[in-house]
Amino acid sequence: MLYDEKMRTDILSRLSGYRLEHTLGCEQAAMELGLRFGEDTEKCSLAAVLHDITKRLSREEQLYLCDKYGIIPCDVEKMEWKMLHGKTAAAIAQREYHAPPEIVHAIAYHTTGCAKMTTLDKILYLADFIEPTRDFKGVEPARALAKRDMDQALLYCFDYSLSDLIERGKLIHKDTFEARNWLIWQGVQRV
Amino acid sequence: MLYDEKMRTDILSRLSGYRLEHTLGCEQAAMELGLRFGEDTEKCSLAAVLHDITKRLSREEQLYLCDKYGIIPCDVEKMEWKMLHGKTAAAIAQREYHAPPEIVHAIAYHTTGCAKMTTLDKILYLADFIEPTRDFKGVEPARALAKRDMDQALLYCFDYSLSDLIERGKLIHKDTFEARNWLIWQGVQRV
Repeated sequence: MLYDEKMRTDILSRLSGYRLEHTLGCEQAAMELGLRFGEDTEKCSLAAVLHDITKRLSREEQLYLCDKYGIIPCDVEKMEWKMLHGKTAAAIAQREYHAPPEIVHAIAYHTTGCAKMTTLDKILYLADFIEPTRDFKGVEPARALAKRDMDQALLYCFDYSLSDLIERGKLIHKDTFEARNWLIWQGVQRV
Repeated sequence: MLYDEKMRTDILSRLSGYRLEHTLGCEQAAMELGLRFGEDTEKCSLAAVLHDITKRLSREEQLYLCDKYGIIPCDVEKMEWKMLHGKTAAAIAQREYHAPPEIVHAIAYHTTGCAKMTTLDKILYLADFIEPTRDFKGVEPARALAKRDMDQALLYCFDYSLSDLIERGKLIHKDTFEARNWLIWQGVQRV
C-alpha cells in the first residue's frame, strides 16, 4: 500500500475550496485513465492528490521551497514563477510524504510535460487537463481523445497549451516544446 | 565594397525561376529594411542574394555539404532536412564567397531565427517572410508591422510560423522556440 487514510486526510487538509474540488476531480480522472491504460490506480491517486499541494503559495514561498530543496528555476520559471508549483509539490511529495520516484516525477512535470514521459506522467498531465471541473474551450476534444488514445490526447493538450501561450504572448517552457517534439518523434499524429 | 558585379553574377547564376525571383524580392525587402532600421544595405543585399543558394539541393546533397563543412544536424534537422539549407548556404557564403561573419550568421539562422539575433539577422528573416512575391495568409500584417517596428514584426512572424507548425503537426526547431522566448524576454509584446 502506497498510502493510508491518515496520510490522505493529512494531504487533503492542506487543500480547500476550488483547489480541493479540482484535486479530487483530477484523482477521479487519473484513476479512470489508469484503469483504461494499464497503470496502478493507487499510484494515479497519490500523484493526483499531491500534484497541486503547493499551488496556493506566493512567489516568495515558491522560491523559499526551491532554495530549501535544491530546485534551480530556469529563466522561464523565474519569470512565470507559478510554473514552479510542479517542482515544489514534487519535493514535498518526496521529502514529506516519501512518495516513490515515479510519482515524484509525474508531479514535477504535470505543468509542462517533458520528453520521454512515462505512462504515469502522461496520466497525471491528462487528468489535470480533462478532470470534471474543467470547462474551457478545448476540453471536450481532449476528453474524447483520452477515451481512445492517450498519446493523441496528450499531443492535443500540448498543441492547445502552446497555441494558448502564443496567443497570450507568454513564454514557452523548454520542457513543453520538447514534450511535443518527442511525441511527434514517436510517430504520434495530430488528429 | 563587400562584393562586385562579377561575384553577384556568379551567385545569381546558381539560381533560376521562382527561387531567383524570390531572392531578388528578398534583396529588395532586405535593403528597404536596412534603410529603415539602420543597417548597411550592401550587407543586406549580399545576405539576401546568398540566403537560398543551396535550397534546391536534395537531402543527400545537403548531408554531403554538412559533412564537408563540419555542420552537425540536430535531431529536428535530420528529420526536417530542408531546414539545413540555411546552415549549408552559410557555409558556402563563408567558404566560397568569403562573406564576413555577420552575413554568414544571418544566413545560417534565416530559416529558424535564434536567441540574440542581430539587426542583420532580423532583417534577413523578415525580408524572407515579407518579400513581394510572398502571398500567404498572414503576410500583410507582417508587412504592416515591418514598416514601424522590427521586433513586433519578428514576433508576429515567429508566432505565425509556430502556429503553422503546430497546425500541421510538424516538429519545432529549438532555435525558433528560443528566438520567440528571447524576444518576449526583451519586452517585445504581441500586437
